[in-house]
Amino acid sequence: MVKERLVSHEIHLKQRPVGMPTEDNFQLVKVNIPDLKDGEFLVRNIWMSVDPYMRGRMREIRSYISPFQIGEPLEGGCIGQIIKSNNDRFTVGDYVLGNLGWREYWLSDGSGSDVMKIDPNLAPIQWYLGILGLTGLTAYVGLLKIAQLVDNSNSTIFVSAAAGAVGSVACQIAKIKGCRVIGSAGSQEKVKWLLDQAKVDHAFNYKEVGEGNISAELGKSCPGRIDIYFDNVGGKHLEAAIDNMKTFGRIVLCGMISQYNLTSTPTGPSNLFLAVPNRLKLQGFIVRDHYNMLNEFYVDMSKWIGEGKIKWRETVIEGIENAPKAFLSLFKGENIGKMLVKIGF
Amino acid sequence: MVKERLVSHEIHLKQRPVGMPTEDNFQLVKVNIPDLKDGEFLVRNIWMSVDPYMRGRMREIRSYISPFQIGEPLEGGCIGQIIKSNNDRFTVGDYVLGNLGWREYWLSDGSGSDVMKIDPNLAPIQWYLGILGLTGLTAYVGLLKIAQLVDNSNSTIFVSAAAGAVGSVACQIAKIKGCRVIGSAGSQEKVKWLLDQAKVDHAFNYKEVGEGNISAELGKSCPGRIDIYFDNVGGKHLEAAIDNMKTFGRIVLCGMISQYNLTSTPTGPSNLFLAVPNRLKLQGFIVRDHYNMLNEFYVDMSKWIGEGKIKWRETVIEGIENAPKAFLSLFKGENIGKMLVKIGF
Repeated sequence: MVKERLVSHEIHLKQRPVGMPTEDNFQLVKVNIPDLKDGEFLVRNIWMSVDPYMRGRMREIRSYISPFQIGEPLEGGCIGQIIKSNNDRFTVGDYVLGNLGWREYWLSDGSGSDVMKIDPNLAPIQWYLGILGLTGLTAYVGLLKIAQLVDNSNSTIFVSAAAGAVGSVACQIAKIKGCRVIGSAGSQEKVKWLLDQAKVDHAFNYKEVGEGNISAELGKSCPGRIDIYFDNVGGKHLEAAIDNMKTFGRIVLCGMISQYNLTSTPTGPSNLFLAVPNRLKLQGFIVRDHYNMLNEFYVDMSKWIGEGKIKWRETVIEGIENAPKAFLSLFKGENIGKMLVKIGF
Repeated sequence: MVKERLVSHEIHLKQRPVGMPTEDNFQLVKVNIPDLKDGEFLVRNIWMSVDPYMRGRMREIRSYISPFQIGEPLEGGCIGQIIKSNNDRFTVGDYVLGNLGWREYWLSDGSGSDVMKIDPNLAPIQWYLGILGLTGLTAYVGLLKIAQLVDNSNSTIFVSAAAGAVGSVACQIAKIKGCRVIGSAGSQEKVKWLLDQAKVDHAFNYKEVGEGNISAELGKSCPGRIDIYFDNVGGKHLEAAIDNMKTFGRIVLCGMISQYNLTSTPTGPSNLFLAVPNRLKLQGFIVRDHYNMLNEFYVDMSKWIGEGKIKWRETVIEGIENAPKAFLSLFKGENIGKMLVKIGF
């Protein structure tokens, strides 16, 4: 009797991108899933996350996380369901959060270190990749831990890429904490979403304003200057924020999407010297250093969602074969909120 | 009877410098000192401080301190002796620290808010402008408060302008705290002083190395990377340090002397995006926010000086008329240690 093999489609890194990645940098590969050994279980992915930070892993550089390897599958947050199991602790039908996205199926060794069970009755399962996952936690840590934002703050906060996954949550947490919130985004549709749904106090389309005029735009919209800048963009946005920071202002360096695909040497903020007279603090962070805040994050975020204080938006692309396209679209600003790939149906 | 007026020579700002200041920007002016009113006392300056930060006050910009005015005398730290007094609390012969340098004589209203009495028996009086004054406090605050350096640290610390007034103290405090210290300076004589007197672990002449090679020089001399960078220079030094910072490294932004006289837009550090994956913190500070640390500073610094753990060097120029020259020489790197002007004899 010929045993039928389970075939999984995966996305491999074909070559390291130079500058803006293209679909040619990726390859759709068919692999056979081996039989399960004792203790192992098989996960069928349903959702996967694509995030700007993944661009960094496509470079071969020293970083906090090992680079992706050419000819190997990419990795990233995913939500799946267990469809076979040789492990008593993990049952067929369980939903799990893992880090082996960019593929249809994967085997866990069953040690439990690579998965977290999630409850599909509490929230839509894909939320554990976003508002109830690392995306939400990133915004939460950036504001509450790095920028030390407190309750009933009268701070003015500026968020760039404000209609993106992390930015949109940062805006709304800041509103909950009593801040005046200004957001920048790259389209009129995003600006409208920020004003109508995220309820920010002011939003502008930086493409319409012009990158050279962001500083003047902030000068007008933040006459009392900025207490906290939540930076997702870097470049001209960061420079404009530095121009407009209040004395003792804090700049949270969460990401610099404007810099990830440059082929020439980036130009740093020309006005960084203002950090001395204005006593500015700029601090970079990575969410995985702050998993000790997960419990309080779940408590707060569940409460805020229950109270209708957080609007959450997803942009969904379907099919594992379209995962590279979804990733590339992040750099074209085609997503509002969290960009997700739906794999299983 | 004709009453003889006391004449004081003062240095006025004649015009705002554009780029590197020149002696033409300053004017030596004779003024008559008026008679003393009730409560007032007259100070004859003996020493005055020139500091790079004064360049900032020559611009007409919003800052933490009001700009110098054209046609008015400059200001800055000074040590003088009271030579006339209509005030019971201040006696002829008392030595005082004040902020009205750049002149031979000045009147205090006697409120006590503009002077601090100093004891000439404890230390050479000019030390209150340097190692026992704001210069020493700046190094102390930068390392202990901003960089959170603790005792018995095994940190690696890089100090730029390490043979300057603040830098030389920062190097030695770091040694006392158990750090491995690397210093950069602009001449072989300074490098020799750093190695022989300040006892740093490694020093290099950045002019010999070449500004473009500072990063490689740090890579060689700090193979375990840098925990704390004490920045007095900005520009290429800051960029090179960012390249070589350890994860969670702290950058103390104390000054950026390389930027003060630029006439074109400065280029910021092109690699600032590394602050995100490496979780760097960059923080600017101004010493006058930290006067609450003065007491512990005096206790620690007196002890360290008494134990011979701090070497202190001064570069002295004589004559009020030479104060502009002394100030300008700061930007040519002509001082080792603290640059002082001796006015009275």
